[in-house]
Amino acid sequence: MSEVAEEPVLAEEIFPLLEEDQEPKRLRVGVLISGSGTNLQALLDACASGALNAEIAVVVSNKPDAFGLVRARRAGVPAVVVDRARYESVSGYNAAIADVLKEHGVELVVMAGYMRLLGKEVLSAFPNRVMNLHPSLLPAFAGASGIKDAYEYGVKVTGVTVHFADEHLDHGPIICQEPVRVDEDDTLETLEAKIHEVEHRLIVEAVRLFEQGRLLIEGRRVRVLPAPDDAGTLTGLDSV
Amino acid sequence: MSEVAEEPVLAEEIFPLLEEDQEPKRLRVGVLISGSGTNLQALLDACASGALNAEIAVVVSNKPDAFGLVRARRAGVPAVVVDRARYESVSGYNAAIADVLKEHGVELVVMAGYMRLLGKEVLSAFPNRVMNLHPSLLPAFAGASGIKDAYEYGVKVTGVTVHFADEHLDHGPIICQEPVRVDEDDTLETLEAKIHEVEHRLIVEAVRLFEQGRLLIEGRRVRVLPAPDDAGTLTGLDSV
Repeated sequence: MSEVAEEPVLAEEIFPLLEEDQEPKRLRVGVLISGSGTNLQALLDACASGALNAEIAVVVSNKPDAFGLVRARRAGVPAVVVDRARYESVSGYNAAIADVLKEHGVELVVMAGYMRLLGKEVLSAFPNRVMNLHPSLLPAFAGASGIKDAYEYGVKVTGVTVHFADEHLDHGPIICQEPVRVDEDDTLETLEAKIHEVEHRLIVEAVRLFEQGRLLIEGRRVRVLPAPDDAGTLTGLDSV
Repeated sequence: MSEVAEEPVLAEEIFPLLEEDQEPKRLRVGVLISGSGTNLQALLDACASGALNAEIAVVVSNKPDAFGLVRARRAGVPAVVVDRARYESVSGYNAAIADVLKEHGVELVVMAGYMRLLGKEVLSAFPNRVMNLHPSLLPAFAGASGIKDAYEYGVKVTGVTVHFADEHLDHGPIICQEPVRVDEDDTLETLEAKIHEVEHRLIVEAVRLFEQGRLLIEGRRVRVLPAPDDAGTLTGLDSV
């Protein structure tokens, strides 16, 4: 600690303005899928448009025929199949997923329609860096059929949740939620369409909050910090 | 069945317009409470202002010191204490509640902060005619501390539910729900205040829908029928 009073330091000296040809560092996101990958597409689009200061570093599917793999290749993103059937144990399977993610320099893992419970091998390799997208207002209607279960229960309000994953199904600290009304004339199909639309928006928003370093986990609660004046001054890597 | 074709009958002949000095029949509501009775007050106010075509026929509390009893007496409404401690069995206690409600000609029972499970003695005396108000988006956070449980779970969206009661806790078909956001600066206390405000609105709305005969139970689903052209043509007593 200096005993000499220092001159105040301008913010520009700490966080120098970027040169015009110098791109800000983009968050490397790994996406886990099992199916058509419409939420993956929303993330790919947000990265391409610059709405997200991120890039999809790799897409991993447990299903060899998941259409999301095609979406990844079309976008020039590495697409990898890790098939449970090819591994003796669940832990070997999960270790393989963790390896793929690490090989591609992933900083944030997003489960976007990934229909298996994630193993501790991935969670411990990416502590507080795995997000799950779920089509209900958790903790209501966890599990594989959140929209249908809510519809059949007869709720008037359901919604979408993005949360940090932990070792329990659809359980970790909640990042953001958005309600969706079940209208009188909604069928299961129209409700699904409304939910999916919100999912595409909410997963992009959650990744943006992480990338901007605005998510602070306090026990079961996720604090969302105010938007920074300069998006370059905070990174997801420091605050989570 | 007549074989003679009949002349069409105008709606006015079936549902004659009311004479000016003839009040429409008001739905007789019995309210069960355990505490301060702020939701009871919302119902009393809505009846007094004419916002609800209903009257509170009797208020029943299981707690002798519930402030809601004072609210009832102030509004000129019979207030009755049915204390569990004074009955040998739970069924005797519930039968006593059913008797009080029947004696006062109750057509709809509203559980408004009533902190006990309602017995089948009341449910069978008022089939599909008992509503419960609960401060969460059921089925999430059922039980005695719905607001606190949701807050501590760290949800970003909770809310209020009004549902028809059945023999299970906070379980029957859902009439209406309204979401409430948990904001960053919300404490448990500010969240409670927001929830209570919505409760007061939603319980009045649910009673109005019932009184207008617009609630149709189909299994676990409650259909809300469109608003009638003439509120006098439908009654809760016919359609539920």
